[in-house]
Amino acid sequence: MSSFWNHNISISIFGESHGPGIGVVIDNLPAGEYIDAEQLTEFMARRAPRNDATSTHRKESDIPSIMSGVLNNRTTGTPLMALIRNNDQHSADYGNVSRLARPGHADYTGALRYKGFNDVRGGGHFSGRLTAPIVFAGAVCGQILEHRGIYTGAHIAAIHNIKDKLFDPCNIDRETIIAVRHKKIPVLSDKKGEAMYNDIAKARESLDSVGGIVECAVINVPAGVGSPMFEGIENTVSQLVFGIPAVKGIEFGSGFRAPAMLGSQHNDEFYVDEQGHVKTKTNNSGGILGGISNGMPIIFRVAFKPTPSIARPQATVDYHDLKNETIEIKGRHDPCVVLRAVPVVEAAANIAILSHMLDYPNF
Amino acid sequence: MSSFWNHNISISIFGESHGPGIGVVIDNLPAGEYIDAEQLTEFMARRAPRNDATSTHRKESDIPSIMSGVLNNRTTGTPLMALIRNNDQHSADYGNVSRLARPGHADYTGALRYKGFNDVRGGGHFSGRLTAPIVFAGAVCGQILEHRGIYTGAHIAAIHNIKDKLFDPCNIDRETIIAVRHKKIPVLSDKKGEAMYNDIAKARESLDSVGGIVECAVINVPAGVGSPMFEGIENTVSQLVFGIPAVKGIEFGSGFRAPAMLGSQHNDEFYVDEQGHVKTKTNNSGGILGGISNGMPIIFRVAFKPTPSIARPQATVDYHDLKNETIEIKGRHDPCVVLRAVPVVEAAANIAILSHMLDYPNF
Amino acid sequence: MSSFWNHNISISIFGESHGPGIGVVIDNLPAGEYIDAEQLTEFMARRAPRNDATSTHRKESDIPSIMSGVLNNRTTGTPLMALIRNNDQHSADYGNVSRLARPGHADYTGALRYKGFNDVRGGGHFSGRLTAPIVFAGAVCGQILEHRGIYTGAHIAAIHNIKDKLFDPCNIDRETIIAVRHKKIPVLSDKKGEAMYNDIAKARESLDSVGGIVECAVINVPAGVGSPMFEGIENTVSQLVFGIPAVKGIEFGSGFRAPAMLGSQHNDEFYVDEQGHVKTKTNNSGGILGGISNGMPIIFRVAFKPTPSIARPQATVDYHDLKNETIEIKGRHDPCVVLRAVPVVEAAANIAILSHMLDYPNF
Amino acid sequence: MSSFWNHNISISIFGESHGPGIGVVIDNLPAGEYIDAEQLTEFMARRAPRNDATSTHRKESDIPSIMSGVLNNRTTGTPLMALIRNNDQHSADYGNVSRLARPGHADYTGALRYKGFNDVRGGGHFSGRLTAPIVFAGAVCGQILEHRGIYTGAHIAAIHNIKDKLFDPCNIDRETIIAVRHKKIPVLSDKKGEAMYNDIAKARESLDSVGGIVECAVINVPAGVGSPMFEGIENTVSQLVFGIPAVKGIEFGSGFRAPAMLGSQHNDEFYVDEQGHVKTKTNNSGGILGGISNGMPIIFRVAFKPTPSIARPQATVDYHDLKNETIEIKGRHDPCVVLRAVPVVEAAANIAILSHMLDYPNF
Repeated sequence: MSSFWNHNISISIFGESHGPGIGVVIDNLPAGEYIDAEQLTEFMARRAPRNDATSTHRKESDIPSIMSGVLNNRTTGTPLMALIRNNDQHSADYGNVSRLARPGHADYTGALRYKGFNDVRGGGHFSGRLTAPIVFAGAVCGQILEHRGIYTGAHIAAIHNIKDKLFDPCNIDRETIIAVRHKKIPVLSDKKGEAMYNDIAKARESLDSVGGIVECAVINVPAGVGSPMFEGIENTVSQLVFGIPAVKGIEFGSGFRAPAMLGSQHNDEFYVDEQGHVKTKTNNSGGILGGISNGMPIIFRVAFKPTPSIARPQATVDYHDLKNETIEIKGRHDPCVVLRAVPVVEAAANIAILSHMLDYPNF
Repeated sequence: MSSFWNHNISISIFGESHGPGIGVVIDNLPAGEYIDAEQLTEFMARRAPRNDATSTHRKESDIPSIMSGVLNNRTTGTPLMALIRNNDQHSADYGNVSRLARPGHADYTGALRYKGFNDVRGGGHFSGRLTAPIVFAGAVCGQILEHRGIYTGAHIAAIHNIKDKLFDPCNIDRETIIAVRHKKIPVLSDKKGEAMYNDIAKARESLDSVGGIVECAVINVPAGVGSPMFEGIENTVSQLVFGIPAVKGIEFGSGFRAPAMLGSQHNDEFYVDEQGHVKTKTNNSGGILGGISNGMPIIFRVAFKPTPSIARPQATVDYHDLKNETIEIKGRHDPCVVLRAVPVVEAAANIAILSHMLDYPNF
Repeated sequence: MSSFWNHNISISIFGESHGPGIGVVIDNLPAGEYIDAEQLTEFMARRAPRNDATSTHRKESDIPSIMSGVLNNRTTGTPLMALIRNNDQHSADYGNVSRLARPGHADYTGALRYKGFNDVRGGGHFSGRLTAPIVFAGAVCGQILEHRGIYTGAHIAAIHNIKDKLFDPCNIDRETIIAVRHKKIPVLSDKKGEAMYNDIAKARESLDSVGGIVECAVINVPAGVGSPMFEGIENTVSQLVFGIPAVKGIEFGSGFRAPAMLGSQHNDEFYVDEQGHVKTKTNNSGGILGGISNGMPIIFRVAFKPTPSIARPQATVDYHDLKNETIEIKGRHDPCVVLRAVPVVEAAANIAILSHMLDYPNF
Repeated sequence: MSSFWNHNISISIFGESHGPGIGVVIDNLPAGEYIDAEQLTEFMARRAPRNDATSTHRKESDIPSIMSGVLNNRTTGTPLMALIRNNDQHSADYGNVSRLARPGHADYTGALRYKGFNDVRGGGHFSGRLTAPIVFAGAVCGQILEHRGIYTGAHIAAIHNIKDKLFDPCNIDRETIIAVRHKKIPVLSDKKGEAMYNDIAKARESLDSVGGIVECAVINVPAGVGSPMFEGIENTVSQLVFGIPAVKGIEFGSGFRAPAMLGSQHNDEFYVDEQGHVKTKTNNSGGILGGISNGMPIIFRVAFKPTPSIARPQATVDYHDLKNETIEIKGRHDPCVVLRAVPVVEAAANIAILSHMLDYPNF
């Protein structure tokens, strides 16, 4: 290759669901950033199983041990590694997955990609458990962003057919973000949250599962952050977001509603506000123009499919012997991953935005 | 940055709309691949302005000169550079853009990102014209894929409120792809195509614009191509697709319809077909599980916003003097970019898939 | 950044000398490779302190725990993480380093780079201890190469003024490599090894230190591996080798002797040997032409400076208060790093060659 | 791959010696930098053939056309592409290279790597001509560095057995750098330069060639620039320098003289100078500690082999038919590449240092 390049933030995720541990190395974090351990724990707790009708009753031990890169609660600037040990492994529950492809899972594709040598227990490296280190990395990046007044918040925009109201795209404030962050069901309308809870419980009772949509906003990103073409904010966010299992789509601002609009409706007219700041009257752009932030809230939505692990019998194949079979998935699984996915989506946003912010003058 | 790379193919796009030329360097192409010049020209012609009601009446000279990387019609394996000269520049038409931010454009964000030094004429590096080198790169990659029986095809799934039918997700064949590729309005239902044409013409008459959705499929990708997490097929495709101006969202397979489905509806059950191949009965996965192809057609849809360049007066700001203004955009602009975007979406898919295919044993 | 990648294998090193642990994530290893734990341990033991006159009397616990990426002694293909815990930390010995720059160390530059927040205990992330995870990664890559008959071996070409003979550049065989690998002083001429040992002991007694040269060879790499320009074998090897502390230079084949030769002396004439293989009569190229292997042994030499940690009083500065000071370095330090550096150089070669080999057809 | 990363400066070189053109895309340059066209031309002229006894009599047309990234003599911040057309091609001279491997050239390895499809005329992509775009990129980066007071200069440290004196490692100033830059034979001692000229002429008369050493210094790089391990200044410089054809080795500071020194001799003691700046009394480190600049001049030396193209008959192979042959190389070739390599080495340094400087606060 006749190309040469250097870099900003790198993250390297490792681990398998039922191996000794999972974790992440984060390279090129700015030095001297205060990392609040309690806040980290809180952020990660939002991803943990809830032991209620919405999630698995597994007891995941998600306590990360920071092995490097933090000293006296501040980033050293050299690589930060966090290790999360696995210790509630019931591998027996997964006894039959090694021959039968669970529909909607990466069992079959993983076996082909890795010639049958990948760890299939609990999904191995493809497990939703691998979102824990993503959340860890995003929690660290998020704290660094918050030191600059940048806040990321997400809520459940939909579960199955029940829709929460959306963020007011021009007027998302820190209070709204903090408030939704601490809710048990992170929605703007608690009534809708209750309906969602019941819907999930109902799916669970019928041995089924539901999906949903997460809406995420990042506020106070200064205008001028990002790059054109393949290194724009959308590119980076989406490269990270599609690293989250069960994601089927992503849209920024008006997203898939844009095609049905006229240009005269869609264009966000600019104005100068009373403080002399350039703003837009609407925010169909989702805060990004040409891959670069325009100072308005950055907004995107992520579609999650229903959890593929359902207890009903399903037609499948034995991909070793290439014959048709029926599978009944045992083990403990979330009837809906969306509640636990909310902080994962925020985490992806934090990593992407911090990586872009490092190019920003005087960051 | 206008460069894209994963571990394999790299592309580096350069140029500004009204500068001397635009183009692309493609690095790490396999050597010895026959490149059909006529097919290249045909592919690029699909992106050219149409001189009808749907597009600008500019006469873009999009003939690429290959400066390196091809000898005797075969790739040499060393970097391929293609240059497209700019020669129909009416910079005077853009006289007022340098002070006033066109709504929906990157004028304001680009000026901040590049401290006012970027070339604003015709949108500069942010211009839709920069999709020409993407199309070129995608056309080259597409030919290399077709040598292995892999075909990429796209159609307009929607313009404004008019929807084409969608691909049959389990049964897209080469004939369907080739047929739609040669249509003037690339749709599955020509009746809908006609309605779309009229709708665009109507928008144009009312000095407005419309957006739409492009659906793209890649067939015959063998199962087992791709990687988990941040280097999956979705990650690579979306990193490239968000490099296309006006894109607001992307979804794979069931996409944003997935959240409203139950797991028992969404899971694609596997079966072994008569030829002994593993297939799925439905294709909500869009041919990808865990970032890796499962042998079914790879399907994704891309949402485009209405062209932001409309001739109506719009409120905006002078971003030098920070005061409110009104802008009337002159120049020749497409009332709808979606028709011309169809081959650009295919191109992005081709680059992404070829890049992943290079890891495939015995490619 | 402590990460390395070219288009294939990535490694991400983490840890600080006196933190909880150090280690490495290796991404994109081929799946299904048998990893011999005993061989790994042996390889790592070659880097361990020797408890004799040549090295520190510290007892480093260098036992790596593999946390992911290996199952039933075979690589899974997903990221392999190995953690080495630190447990013989005498941080008190380093009490004064936080204010005074040790000459020849990265204390001062690290403090500037990381705004004073880096971990300075024992050199922190700049410590020679961080070569342990490099050795681990190289040992894994080396086993995978040996499965294909590719062997890497290195010996001490010089310590201070004492020179070992060099490899016969055209005729290095597996036996020579294995033999030197198991020597206590890895040299070709044991007599020279003895002299080196005595010279190091003498330097130690006089509270001084010595440097040296390591020569490394990789045999049986097929011709045609590598790439031109910035991704050639030399580029990759040197990017990794300069990641080893104390390295001052690297040369391939004839290296710094080449400038004094005539072209007619330096050119390696080609011939076809009795088995019909293309070979060269001499090997001034070091097995690489245009960044690509030519089938001859790949040979390079690495210059190491004398250990900067010496017990004599040295002039230095307090870089906080910007005033002149004298420093006396306490703690246990190697009078010569070269013996322990031999497997580190091999490790760097293994990582580089494996990374390039993954592009080789039918690897 | 489970890794994610972003970037600084990228360069993508393209072209073959006898194709239509060669050039480079430079991505992520800072915006608004004044580019002096005359200085660019001067810098590139230093690499041009000299039409005297030291170089080929080819008339290379090395005038780069900037196609993007510069407007009104200032960088736009978006990718800068420069194209150099090839127009003095005597392909007939190279008629026999396509079957016979020229000793010391990449003909054989290139043919294997690219399955015989690479352009072999004049060496194709492996040609020394490809250093012209490297020089262009380096000239641009160098101007940007000079705006910050950072100067790069190189001289011929040796040709064959004739040695120039070396830079005074602690006291290189701008005047010395500028003075040597404008010399016809860029040496510190003109007497030695004359001897070198005669030695090259003598080699040429005897149909032979000579190599040499280039010493390069970068002054006024602030302390604290660079990163540890694989992204240190040495790693980046060497990755680029080994992209220059004929390079056999690189050393920083004391380099290959370090192994013969004692630690007490080699360590650079620190002091605070009269202006309150931290300096070192000697500069064996070459201005870099732990991959990071320490404020002293950055110094490295590069070994070049004798030009492999010599007119004498040489034993070689026909690598298609695998039989022994004799080759007589026609065409016009430099009896010594070192004179023309001086600005190429400076260019590599400029690209590397600018890339690191972009991370420096307030750059």
